[in-house]
Amino acid sequence: MKLREVKPEIRVLGIDDGHYGPEDDRTLVVGVVMRGGQWIDGVMSTEVTVDGLDVTDRIAEMVNRSKHRPQLRVILTDGITFAGFNVLDIKKLHEETGLPVISVIKRRPDVASVVSALSNLDRTEERRKIVLRAGPVHSVKTRRDEPPVYFQCAGVEPDVAKVVLKRTATRHRLPEPIRVAHFIATGVTKGESSSDA
Amino acid sequence: MKLREVKPEIRVLGIDDGHYGPEDDRTLVVGVVMRGGQWIDGVMSTEVTVDGLDVTDRIAEMVNRSKHRPQLRVILTDGITFAGFNVLDIKKLHEETGLPVISVIKRRPDVASVVSALSNLDRTEERRKIVLRAGPVHSVKTRRDEPPVYFQCAGVEPDVAKVVLKRTATRHRLPEPIRVAHFIATGVTKGESSSDA
Repeated sequence: MKLREVKPEIRVLGIDDGHYGPEDDRTLVVGVVMRGGQWIDGVMSTEVTVDGLDVTDRIAEMVNRSKHRPQLRVILTDGITFAGFNVLDIKKLHEETGLPVISVIKRRPDVASVVSALSNLDRTEERRKIVLRAGPVHSVKTRRDEPPVYFQCAGVEPDVAKVVLKRTATRHRLPEPIRVAHFIATGVTKGESSSDA
Repeated sequence: MKLREVKPEIRVLGIDDGHYGPEDDRTLVVGVVMRGGQWIDGVMSTEVTVDGLDVTDRIAEMVNRSKHRPQLRVILTDGITFAGFNVLDIKKLHEETGLPVISVIKRRPDVASVVSALSNLDRTEERRKIVLRAGPVHSVKTRRDEPPVYFQCAGVEPDVAKVVLKRTATRHRLPEPIRVAHFIATGVTKGESSSDA
């Protein structure tokens, strides 16, 4: 589906992962359905392997089985690394769900150092390709007088992605659906949410 | 603390429990901090025993250890039975946290049938006393043209509780913090939230 129009009440899925300890081999991933960065319509969840390579498939399954799928217009994720170095393939997630995917972070990502860190893991080359396939890093000022956020996107033009990010940055420069997903994932896995996505 | 004034941005903690299966002896309980039934400020969680009697202590601990505790003004819970027949003592929760507690449900509770169901469990008399100690059931119409909700309260006058319930019923006749806690608790324990609190 092509995203042409960004309505104020656009249904967005925000995704973030939970905390894990040294003894955990899996962690929680939470998706929050919000309308225009304001109202919560639902929550979904899945689990992914720490330092595994299953995050793309697990999120695609979670989205495609959801009763909210028909209403969803775009997926926002907190970066592309989940549960350690379980790297999300945003192009594949877009292809498997039919939805535009925008991966957002607060600081400009240091792609070179991420790629370098991957050499300590198995399937290095596969992970490296996923990181590079996420494409160029763009930036947008979502709120006046605050620093920009940085993003990579698949299935949506960067200029349209910028409108989505501005519209959903209702309380903070990060999109509210990502902030709420972060609150939930850390609140459930740690007992209390940490404040920073 | 006495609740005298109900500001539009009042910080409310909404609490609900998650799903559990026949093989589970514990389930998740989620607390969501919201401002005036609109913005989410944080998420906290704990676990309680299915058909146990620990829900009051677990929720009191969760609230008292929270960094949000100083800002909280009132606790809203989805009824008084959690995880089967783990009954919440709202008077004790009020005493242990110093916060007013309002327990809300959509249908008028049938106290007699709850008390009767308790006879199948251990510590029947203790559970029965907790159920009766929750006090009289009040009702309030929180939204025009919708049925009322029913509530019991501790540490707050029923007339003040009614104002809190009206102010936080921002999207549904049930308070939004309880609806969101329900979405999170069922979304995390079942993979997707069910729509009804």
